[in-house]
Amino acid sequence: MNCMSIVTLTTDFGQHDWFVGVVKGVLLGINPELQIVDITHCIPPGDIHAGAFALAAAASYFPKETVHVTVVDPGVGSSRPALAARTRHATYIGPDNGVLSLALAKDPPEHVHHLENPRYFLASISRTFHGRDIFAPVAAHLTRGAEFSSLGPEVTHWERLSFPEPRREGRDLVGEVVYIDRFGNGITNLPLNSAERVKLAQVHLRGRVASAPLVNFYQSVPKGELLAVPGST
Amino acid sequence: MNCMSIVTLTTDFGQHDWFVGVVKGVLLGINPELQIVDITHCIPPGDIHAGAFALAAAASYFPKETVHVTVVDPGVGSSRPALAARTRHATYIGPDNGVLSLALAKDPPEHVHHLENPRYFLASISRTFHGRDIFAPVAAHLTRGAEFSSLGPEVTHWERLSFPEPRREGRDLVGEVVYIDRFGNGITNLPLNSAERVKLAQVHLRGRVASAPLVNFYQSVPKGELLAVPGST
Amino acid sequence: MNCMSIVTLTTDFGQHDWFVGVVKGVLLGINPELQIVDITHCIPPGDIHAGAFALAAAASYFPKETVHVTVVDPGVGSSRPALAARTRHATYIGPDNGVLSLALAKDPPEHVHHLENPRYFLASISRTFHGRDIFAPVAAHLTRGAEFSSLGPEVTHWERLSFPEPRREGRDLVGEVVYIDRFGNGITNLPLNSAERVKLAQVHLRGRVASAPLVNFYQSVPKGELLAVPGST
Repeated sequence: MNCMSIVTLTTDFGQHDWFVGVVKGVLLGINPELQIVDITHCIPPGDIHAGAFALAAAASYFPKETVHVTVVDPGVGSSRPALAARTRHATYIGPDNGVLSLALAKDPPEHVHHLENPRYFLASISRTFHGRDIFAPVAAHLTRGAEFSSLGPEVTHWERLSFPEPRREGRDLVGEVVYIDRFGNGITNLPLNSAERVKLAQVHLRGRVASAPLVNFYQSVPKGELLAVPGST
Repeated sequence: MNCMSIVTLTTDFGQHDWFVGVVKGVLLGINPELQIVDITHCIPPGDIHAGAFALAAAASYFPKETVHVTVVDPGVGSSRPALAARTRHATYIGPDNGVLSLALAKDPPEHVHHLENPRYFLASISRTFHGRDIFAPVAAHLTRGAEFSSLGPEVTHWERLSFPEPRREGRDLVGEVVYIDRFGNGITNLPLNSAERVKLAQVHLRGRVASAPLVNFYQSVPKGELLAVPGST
Repeated sequence: MNCMSIVTLTTDFGQHDWFVGVVKGVLLGINPELQIVDITHCIPPGDIHAGAFALAAAASYFPKETVHVTVVDPGVGSSRPALAARTRHATYIGPDNGVLSLALAKDPPEHVHHLENPRYFLASISRTFHGRDIFAPVAAHLTRGAEFSSLGPEVTHWERLSFPEPRREGRDLVGEVVYIDRFGNGITNLPLNSAERVKLAQVHLRGRVASAPLVNFYQSVPKGELLAVPGST
């Protein structure tokens, strides 16, 4: 047991209500020494792809043994299972709806269990708030040394999302924008090394086409003009 | 003195300015070992009812001895008193304008004091930012063992908000929406056990009426259709 | 080395993506015992003046030896240098574009260094995310005792922003609104003591003029009416 274990939170709870605070109260009630880090709570409500993308983009920057709790859970209260996956690097906890799957594709798990052991849940389980009642207490108990294998039955299948892959078309590499960030960057699925020999990017949007020079920093072009830049994710 | 005492913050400060950061700076300047948890800073400016509701919804999920600081304070700088209330479960600090009253109705205080002892305030008190100058330093000093009775005179009266109560009309139970959350859930004042024998809810809004089936999870109805579900708060 | 060193973050990253979370992951990977405090992440994208104002307004409320990381960095990836400044009170880290300069005018530095020592950077430096790759790891290494002088060459010049100064016009003191906060307060550059003998403020906006009484608290005037009040910043 590490006294300053790290638990991250990636959710669609927003920050306008008390939901995130309550999840942290539950975590600290079980392990008061936690470092809790918000990855984001602004995933669009129910947007499993966006949640999967944010988690996969962030997880590798955390130290070993971090526990990542991800709650984008439009099926809460239905029969969708709840998962915990342990890799050599980290532990991932969340609903089995694909939201963990992109992170697990990058960081393959050694063990995946369904969460079925009520010993690690709150005493009363609501229909609509498993982040508070199941995912948070399971995460906190794991940081206090709960046996991973005691969470529930081990499984080998879990829901996987499909994300678009880039493809070659003649001399072009064709990808898609998979995420638009707060600065207005359209993050593509084109690999970073594809930028090495390229001078020009084309952006296709609803039948319109625009060209953008591939540059090394934002201020290379006048304000307001399109550019392409090797990304950080 | 607990080295990792928990202080929560529930305010209408928003997250666009430096106000929340400054409050945390003051807290940590007095007790650098605190666990500070944001319940929310997005209470609509001056909305005492919303602040009271958020605090009351969240507080019971925190461990014993948590200190809850709540600052929704449109009367800041006027003669409204400042309060600290100690219950068997927690300590509540904030302006005496009703914002603490719903939490205190659920978790009745053993002692309530006005905050009048300047030893626990910042040296200079502004007209507009008692969260920083009074409420935060009092909270931090309490986590370091300041005597509760030394905060100021004990009082037996404090401002109480009225919230609507549900009522019977023939065979119907009639309540009101008291909070709308980020997902668009209208949270009512109907008790959870009222959902046990009910199959249908009616929503009345400005003379229009709509029916919603009472279901157990969101995905029970097609996307975009009304539903009623037993809540988590 | 202080086990609970404080690092603050002031950025334009917003809270919708995973950027802030990743910066915290990097910080905690180097020093897992940090207290990380968000001053704000809602600086308008690229608005160096707003970032400088928020940092300068907040920094003095943090305890000694706090490390303030400020990333409003429209020139990221260009040749603009990166800075660390040490004062008797605190350490300031950020791009050399003026965003640190208002805080440094209030809290003059004893030593300022460019950040050039890659030992304190992440192994791979992106073009667009120096908050993660340079500023965060430098801050975390400093809290673990890295020598300040080993960060890079000492410098005596850094970018300074100009902010408008108040001026006398006959019997009037004329200032400007330099920041509008979440409550709609227009924060001016008029000094607090200028409020002592004044009874009336005039607000000029695009050729229109309105009068506001100078009062001591918000509820002194009916809701919806203009007022001037001695501020807290």
